[in-house]
Amino acid sequence: MDYLDIAAARQSCRAYNRLRPVEDEKLGKILEAFRLSPSACNAQPYHLTVVRGEKNQAVAKACMGMGMNRFAADAPVLLVLSEDNYNKTAALGSKVKGNDYRSIDIGIAAAQICAEATSLGLSTCILGWFDDDKLRALLGLDKPVRLVITLGYAADGDKLREKKRKDMDTLVSFIK
Amino acid sequence: MDYLDIAAARQSCRAYNRLRPVEDEKLGKILEAFRLSPSACNAQPYHLTVVRGEKNQAVAKACMGMGMNRFAADAPVLLVLSEDNYNKTAALGSKVKGNDYRSIDIGIAAAQICAEATSLGLSTCILGWFDDDKLRALLGLDKPVRLVITLGYAADGDKLREKKRKDMDTLVSFIK
Repeated sequence: MDYLDIAAARQSCRAYNRLRPVEDEKLGKILEAFRLSPSACNAQPYHLTVVRGEKNQAVAKACMGMGMNRFAADAPVLLVLSEDNYNKTAALGSKVKGNDYRSIDIGIAAAQICAEATSLGLSTCILGWFDDDKLRALLGLDKPVRLVITLGYAADGDKLREKKRKDMDTLVSFIK
Repeated sequence: MDYLDIAAARQSCRAYNRLRPVEDEKLGKILEAFRLSPSACNAQPYHLTVVRGEKNQAVAKACMGMGMNRFAADAPVLLVLSEDNYNKTAALGSKVKGNDYRSIDIGIAAAQICAEATSLGLSTCILGWFDDDKLRALLGLDKPVRLVITLGYAADGDKLREKKRKDMDTLVSFIK
């Protein structure tokens, strides 16, 4: 098993099959991949709210400012990733080192969610553009939302695109 | 291929076999998994410095404040993940939404590095405790270091430990 195949297959999906739900068993595995995420001092400073059903449209709408993310309304599952408290060790380390470990941890958790979804044949898009106040009111959250991940099966015809990335020489340097 | 197997197998490794180097081919695949990471507005706001050889000891030492991370000296490869500039879209979005996309992107990239390493039989530890000034001086970096990832083969006897995580009911809630 080579994770590189997952990394190559995973892409932002902006066209979902709204008629094909996500199976409970697959969703359970995705949530377990999220739960197993490593985090600074094992603080796990995040919470995931799984939205599927009546509230989807309102949550999707809260991600649609300035004409963006309209496709979110077709995703059968919306995963809302919000902050939670650090533990004492992580809070102290973050303060001493001036490093925002929590945001990094939230990125790691999002990557684990997307990787597991991809390996199960599902598609995702990570949204950073949403109305935090509206989402928190809708979902009863008392801490900031940091990401919303759309989850579902891609619509027919959604093909693998070539990834546009910086060259290796730009992104990586070697010290001997 | 189920990513969940990788997520379950990956753990922080704090004991490396210092006599067993990381093969170039495997390192290349890990760097490609890093390069393929998704990021907000595809800004790829990070740079990876691969340290292996003479400078390892000095870099490892810069991660050892207050008695921590001594094992870093035995890791044959140290991956230093630092910030790079946003593109204009990501910079604007981050400012408008007050969301630190770059830190999240750095977390995603770290997760992709560790997942590929795990799938190749290598071990990693993500270090957030280091002397940023020293590292930047040693490596000639003009932007903040956010993470250092140790990479190598685990020492004999390094077994899979049970992961301690919050319960699913604490980490996840469902809205219908």
